[in-house]
Amino acid sequence: MDDTRKHIEVCFTPGEYEYFKDEYEIVVVIDVLRATSAICSAFNNGVSALIPVPTIEEAREYQAKGYLVGAERKGQIVDGFDFGNSPYSYMKEELKGQEVVLSTTNGTKAINIAKDADTVVIGALSNLDALCAWLIEQNKNVLCLCSGWQDKFNLEDTICAGAIMEQLIATGNYTSDEDSSIAAKYLYLSAKDNYMGYLKSSSHRRRLKNLNLNEDIKYCLTPNQTDVIPILKNGKLVKI
Amino acid sequence: MDDTRKHIEVCFTPGEYEYFKDEYEIVVVIDVLRATSAICSAFNNGVSALIPVPTIEEAREYQAKGYLVGAERKGQIVDGFDFGNSPYSYMKEELKGQEVVLSTTNGTKAINIAKDADTVVIGALSNLDALCAWLIEQNKNVLCLCSGWQDKFNLEDTICAGAIMEQLIATGNYTSDEDSSIAAKYLYLSAKDNYMGYLKSSSHRRRLKNLNLNEDIKYCLTPNQTDVIPILKNGKLVKI
Repeated sequence: MDDTRKHIEVCFTPGEYEYFKDEYEIVVVIDVLRATSAICSAFNNGVSALIPVPTIEEAREYQAKGYLVGAERKGQIVDGFDFGNSPYSYMKEELKGQEVVLSTTNGTKAINIAKDADTVVIGALSNLDALCAWLIEQNKNVLCLCSGWQDKFNLEDTICAGAIMEQLIATGNYTSDEDSSIAAKYLYLSAKDNYMGYLKSSSHRRRLKNLNLNEDIKYCLTPNQTDVIPILKNGKLVKI
Repeated sequence: MDDTRKHIEVCFTPGEYEYFKDEYEIVVVIDVLRATSAICSAFNNGVSALIPVPTIEEAREYQAKGYLVGAERKGQIVDGFDFGNSPYSYMKEELKGQEVVLSTTNGTKAINIAKDADTVVIGALSNLDALCAWLIEQNKNVLCLCSGWQDKFNLEDTICAGAIMEQLIATGNYTSDEDSSIAAKYLYLSAKDNYMGYLKSSSHRRRLKNLNLNEDIKYCLTPNQTDVIPILKNGKLVKI
């Protein structure tokens, strides 16, 4: 009998996406520290839409048109922009109902690379259970696209992807067979009881800690703070 | 006080090598199933030199000149060639003292990508302890370059890289800070007591099992069968 289960697989970096992309109806873009956590935080706070742009130049063009624009590179707010990618920046009253623009080192680049997939949604630990429940309802082939750090593998996105896999596989309706998926699940299983401790030595956590962003890290590594699921529609992220 | 320790890091795929390459004096190319295991087997059997070539076309040119040539794609011997990349093919009496040419799906491609590094050596589980002892003597920055499978991450190369890391880090003279290295070490630690069991579900092991290559898999996953260390000199691999 044919295996009718759908696939849930993990792609570690935007650079590897081209080797995966054709087989998945849904791509979940993940950048736990911090772009996709911040995007979920923005929709949880009532932002009406979020326009992800890959370059600072495009971000400046939107700024010139009067948009509120966030821009981050290497963990820091880019000079001249309203905010970076701290989830706390997106909890402000003034953003409610607004359309906001965001450009980040890794996350918005990954969204851009995946933009031609049938469906692109935003994943983070902060919307984990809501996202998984929605994915399970769709019953489609799912690829978790980790944003990584400057085109290299990162641990926190991989662990989040492993957490998503775990919930989908548990339904019995999904399978996975890429080695990257198997590795993500192993890494998630060893991390799940203590994300903060497990990621203590991760490169990006060290990077952000050096920038005094420990509060951001705690927020981003705490699962299930919101049930929003941002989805890409005509180049803009909106709430499902 | 400055940290004077050398780095041992892990690059998961040839595609990511460009983001790593400038900082490492020694690159260890790893393709456990099966190119680098076969290369170690060849030198253990007394092959005098092995010329790795990335393309089938180049392999044919060498064949036309009278060389013994191995060529493998997707796990199988390419039509018209003397052998593929089974380690057992390289144990034959007729290869002793010969210069042999090899082209494989992933391994020889990775060797080619790394060829401009100061030093390129060949790593496998089969030469693990000898290789680590030699690396430790050199006291240089080391990058383990995993060959992967068709530009994607694979488990067996990563676990071998994690095993190399473990031995170097244990000396106290090495450190690592890439997330890929941290992940490789975690994956190695969960695999080390039972490589065969751990890799049961890995994609390439399944692929080779379907080709009836279980004996090859057992050979490739058994550590320390030889103390040869192949090194790249002027485009040819020779024994150190």
